[in-house]
Amino acid sequence: MQLLDAAQVKQLIQTVGLPTVLTQMIERLRYDFSRWDVFDKSPRHAVYHPQGVLELMPCADDQMYTFKYVNGHPKNTEAGRLCVAAFGMLADQRNGYPLLMCDMTWLTAIRTACMVALVAEVASPAHHQGRLGLIGTGAQAEFIVAAMQRVWPLSCCAYFDIDASAMEKFSKNINQMKIDLHPCDSAQAVCEASDVVVTLTAAKQHNRLIDPAWLHPGQLICALGGDCPEKTELDVDLVQQCRVLVEYAPQTRLEGELQQCPDHDQVIELHQAFSDPSLIRPSEDTWVLFDSVGFAVEDFSALRVIEALLKAHPECATVLEWVPNVMDPKDLYGALVQDTPDV
Amino acid sequence: MQLLDAAQVKQLIQTVGLPTVLTQMIERLRYDFSRWDVFDKSPRHAVYHPQGVLELMPCADDQMYTFKYVNGHPKNTEAGRLCVAAFGMLADQRNGYPLLMCDMTWLTAIRTACMVALVAEVASPAHHQGRLGLIGTGAQAEFIVAAMQRVWPLSCCAYFDIDASAMEKFSKNINQMKIDLHPCDSAQAVCEASDVVVTLTAAKQHNRLIDPAWLHPGQLICALGGDCPEKTELDVDLVQQCRVLVEYAPQTRLEGELQQCPDHDQVIELHQAFSDPSLIRPSEDTWVLFDSVGFAVEDFSALRVIEALLKAHPECATVLEWVPNVMDPKDLYGALVQDTPDV
Repeated sequence: MQLLDAAQVKQLIQTVGLPTVLTQMIERLRYDFSRWDVFDKSPRHAVYHPQGVLELMPCADDQMYTFKYVNGHPKNTEAGRLCVAAFGMLADQRNGYPLLMCDMTWLTAIRTACMVALVAEVASPAHHQGRLGLIGTGAQAEFIVAAMQRVWPLSCCAYFDIDASAMEKFSKNINQMKIDLHPCDSAQAVCEASDVVVTLTAAKQHNRLIDPAWLHPGQLICALGGDCPEKTELDVDLVQQCRVLVEYAPQTRLEGELQQCPDHDQVIELHQAFSDPSLIRPSEDTWVLFDSVGFAVEDFSALRVIEALLKAHPECATVLEWVPNVMDPKDLYGALVQDTPDV
Repeated sequence: MQLLDAAQVKQLIQTVGLPTVLTQMIERLRYDFSRWDVFDKSPRHAVYHPQGVLELMPCADDQMYTFKYVNGHPKNTEAGRLCVAAFGMLADQRNGYPLLMCDMTWLTAIRTACMVALVAEVASPAHHQGRLGLIGTGAQAEFIVAAMQRVWPLSCCAYFDIDASAMEKFSKNINQMKIDLHPCDSAQAVCEASDVVVTLTAAKQHNRLIDPAWLHPGQLICALGGDCPEKTELDVDLVQQCRVLVEYAPQTRLEGELQQCPDHDQVIELHQAFSDPSLIRPSEDTWVLFDSVGFAVEDFSALRVIEALLKAHPECATVLEWVPNVMDPKDLYGALVQDTPDV
């Protein structure tokens, strides 16, 4: 089995280059969403604790099985820890043996950002001017900009966060990307200055980040931070007025903005929207909401990208005899109690 | 995070000694089943493939979260691989960060065997003579004997397998334990020569290993190999005549012998049986069936035992910076693209 801790994943991404990783991730996601029906899909398994949520996200096609473990603990930041950390595993369906296990903290941010870029390709308003807006500039923010840059004619980025130091950090990171930056003093200013608005806030509460009065006709909203029960970013009234794009409806109805609108009937799964973009907008003025919660197929794609990158850069992984290596598969006991050199 | 591959788990178990590990596992299982209501429980998540099954088994109390990944691929043996391999993770509920990850292939065999020993303590027939019978002597078999020896007055062991070399392997391993061995030429002979019969076969089919005519009044049957849909070891007629002990009814009704008897109304969960053994037998002659499928609480117990053993033997684990170690938790991007020495 190939094992990569966070530092090794970083080394692999730096070796290949983040732009290349983003491009390959977008292409892999596009490919996997185009063959949606081959996947074994289920809503993720979640355990809720007063401090956060712990989730398992399994997925499989007929060749490979993957799962990701991911937590969401909004108060981790205060203690100097990440709100969201993750790792995943890729196994061969034919024998169930793990092939690859790696930290997926960065990969989760990367694949989430690449999904926004894929949605922006097909669901941005007609005649848009490449103006991106971010409400929230925490750990996920720069990845959105970097992914959008790969496939979308990004002209400028408006942004706002209630934490001034998070805005400063964002500005410092983005300055190196040579993008026109518009720091804003409110969410309203972000909405007014953008064609595509992305919300990415961490607080576990029912929030109301956007007043419908702030939006232009046809605007695309990507709500990334409403991703578990009792955690939403948008008002019910706004969600009701939008055409809603979702990754996998059974999970989004439990975890996304849609948890507030069980009767919403304008819901389209992304695999449908990607294969027929005409489904997305009944009119140019329709508000489109990408109600992103993060789905297991995206982590499957991410692990397949890492597996492919490792073919050219195997030195980035540690190779382990993870499973007991026994002479006789029926002699599991003997392999444990004897001092055999093969284990 | 502490990481243990199979060889390190072996080193830890050999350092402590398997008998001590078995005793601690039995005590931990007894403790965890006595506080059943504190656990977040759910049937495991399974993906079925023509070659086998891939499962995730999450569990949590208010302090700790665990999951195990385990496969079941009966045809692996032919290719020199294990039918069942597993690994698990222990995380802190307060922040979701992994504390321990380890191979659980041996631990799965150990905790499964310890559950049989715990059941035998309370559910063996009255006036039994300590006679154990095994139908199937594959990878799990010796662990049953070793665990029973810790808590049950084991006098002799009858055994049968359709694979003569598996019987030889079993005999060779058990000879070192100084137990009276009775090799048998049929499942019938095993049943007739034992007070507690354990079935542990790997074939994925509806089997009929035991004819009720072979059983004594009051016999205890532990069916370990019927543990996923379409895989059972006992005939419906026999199951219907038994009082059935289960780990967690919602999972056993999907995966165990009970999948064949949806209307069975003589089902008792083990936590009830452990706290009130009088529930087990309406009469001395009742056949009792432990319909074992393996439940996530058992893996929680196993991981807590390993965590405790590592306190005295930390040298058996590798310590990894598994999650990105960032200066500013909101600057996940900066930590990836910059050559910071802290990651």
